[in-house]
Amino acid sequence: MATSQQPDGQSGTIFSAETYFATQPPPPSLEQDVARVKDFLQRQLKDGRKVVLVTSGGTTVPLELNVVRFLDNFSAGTRGATSAEYFLKAGYAVIFMHRQFSLQPFSRHYSHSTHPFLDFLEIEESSPKSSTSGPSSRINVRPSEEPHLLEVLSTYKAVQRAGTLLTLNFVTVNDYLWLLRAVSQEMSLLGRHCLYYLAAAVSDFFLPRQKMSVHKIQSGKGSLHIEMDQVPKILKPLVAEWTREGFIVSFKLETDPDLLIPKACQALARYGHQVVIGNDLHRRKFEVVFVSPKASAESKPSGYEESWLRIDLNKNPQKEIEEDIVAELVGRHERWIRDAIVTVRT
Amino acid sequence: MATSQQPDGQSGTIFSAETYFATQPPPPSLEQDVARVKDFLQRQLKDGRKVVLVTSGGTTVPLELNVVRFLDNFSAGTRGATSAEYFLKAGYAVIFMHRQFSLQPFSRHYSHSTHPFLDFLEIEESSPKSSTSGPSSRINVRPSEEPHLLEVLSTYKAVQRAGTLLTLNFVTVNDYLWLLRAVSQEMSLLGRHCLYYLAAAVSDFFLPRQKMSVHKIQSGKGSLHIEMDQVPKILKPLVAEWTREGFIVSFKLETDPDLLIPKACQALARYGHQVVIGNDLHRRKFEVVFVSPKASAESKPSGYEESWLRIDLNKNPQKEIEEDIVAELVGRHERWIRDAIVTVRT
Repeated sequence: MATSQQPDGQSGTIFSAETYFATQPPPPSLEQDVARVKDFLQRQLKDGRKVVLVTSGGTTVPLELNVVRFLDNFSAGTRGATSAEYFLKAGYAVIFMHRQFSLQPFSRHYSHSTHPFLDFLEIEESSPKSSTSGPSSRINVRPSEEPHLLEVLSTYKAVQRAGTLLTLNFVTVNDYLWLLRAVSQEMSLLGRHCLYYLAAAVSDFFLPRQKMSVHKIQSGKGSLHIEMDQVPKILKPLVAEWTREGFIVSFKLETDPDLLIPKACQALARYGHQVVIGNDLHRRKFEVVFVSPKASAESKPSGYEESWLRIDLNKNPQKEIEEDIVAELVGRHERWIRDAIVTVRT
Repeated sequence: MATSQQPDGQSGTIFSAETYFATQPPPPSLEQDVARVKDFLQRQLKDGRKVVLVTSGGTTVPLELNVVRFLDNFSAGTRGATSAEYFLKAGYAVIFMHRQFSLQPFSRHYSHSTHPFLDFLEIEESSPKSSTSGPSSRINVRPSEEPHLLEVLSTYKAVQRAGTLLTLNFVTVNDYLWLLRAVSQEMSLLGRHCLYYLAAAVSDFFLPRQKMSVHKIQSGKGSLHIEMDQVPKILKPLVAEWTREGFIVSFKLETDPDLLIPKACQALARYGHQVVIGNDLHRRKFEVVFVSPKASAESKPSGYEESWLRIDLNKNPQKEIEEDIVAELVGRHERWIRDAIVTVRT
């Protein structure tokens, strides 16, 4: 781990991915999670299914070992949870790696805050005049809610029967990094048949374990000063080492629209992966942009192309943009798999 | 707002509550929330009900105006959501002021992560041989889940009919502070018949709007430096100005057991309220301590007394410590109301 002087005069510890994993401890559940991933992948391989890893929700950076306070990244997990459903619909097996308590496929339709399920259940008293009506009462779904719930529930049960959804949890950015490395290394055995849909909002900064306060930071001593180090750029080893044939889609969220395309191109140039989906914080429900390397005869891309995807929520308020995002990616992934065969044949 | 030199040499801006509210903008929903609180309190006054304000969940401190990153305080909202149910059971009307998406009374029993409701619903095909069985299918609750759900649902519906639960949301520490001030000022009209159960995990630090970055803080410039100011000690004006007769219970969460009692006594000495409930991060599900001023003939307390409450989760794993906490407080609040009558009579 090298402490270096930054170009702008700031000093900070620069962690390479290698140093990171050598100095930060793995989460206790890692081995168990990896075993579940291995099992899952074996079953999908046997069934000839393509597999997508969907990451979703924000990561935390705890400030204390006995954590009371943490830095977080804004994300309810809507993009990931919604997209996972459309990938399942398209025939993919899905590893859904999400922030604990963020939205999940299927149950996302019944948020406790916006659409609480207790509100659409009704109690039917079967013998209202009996003094012990309690045990003979039964619970019904309100008729107006039944068609939608039936649709969600049927798909949920079908996915459970097919065994095509595996759910993994993370809380901290450290959990996330360890899990992403382990899962991608396992998935690499599927070659081009795996897709990475990295929708989680991952912290750019972290507090190394060695610098963390053991107990709750006490107030009453004036202001709070926090200094954090940069999280290593994990896409680099993901693309170059862990899963060399996977089709990798990363996300770029910005609040300044002028930064969206330049930052997306910069990421593609730096990591050499397939697609960056750019979205503006306030327009992300109805507009995204796909940025990808221009096809070229050389191995180096000759620039980048952008392709905008927009939906009209006024015309169709029920429409989810994730449906179109996933359809577009399924097509691109298909071509990615086909191109490899052509390359081998010629 | 005065910038002062701290005793330990750190410099920071010290906000009094007054300066805080004069310089930080109110949340846009404040007026609407206050109108709902006024209505609610009028109804409870008419029905002669005691009212408790339960605050629950953690507050955030956004680092950007277009918020992508924020500091958060660890809290799922279990203490608050569970206690709210027991207060309702004890006949109180409850204003449940909670962090958006944190646990809520009743629905807390069906967390999407640990006890997802989709798992206990079953689809019954009424005409399995029909080719269009879809519309004639119906949804049933799994028999093993029905008794518990029936109990939760009946209580939930009874509370809705009685109109004794009002739910308010906050996200940031700024939302929380504005809302607490407004609600407590309204509640003061109930005199001693109101109780404050301040279980929310409120940040000790915040970033004044004037210091916030407009857009997402960019990485790639070395480490992240954050400097935050202290949140004003809001219990002071709450006790001394906003709600002078309310029975006020605050919480103290620590990870270092040696700090629990001293910090609780310090808070009572500083703010002059009725009870601090101390809990250790790792023991809070089965052990808390009530710290309160010793009864005294003078107006100043002659020291503090502690009273421990413990439950045995091995013997009774279903037991919730909030049941006993609420029972204890209901008794103390009762005496608080009685004492006032005695004082007036003598």
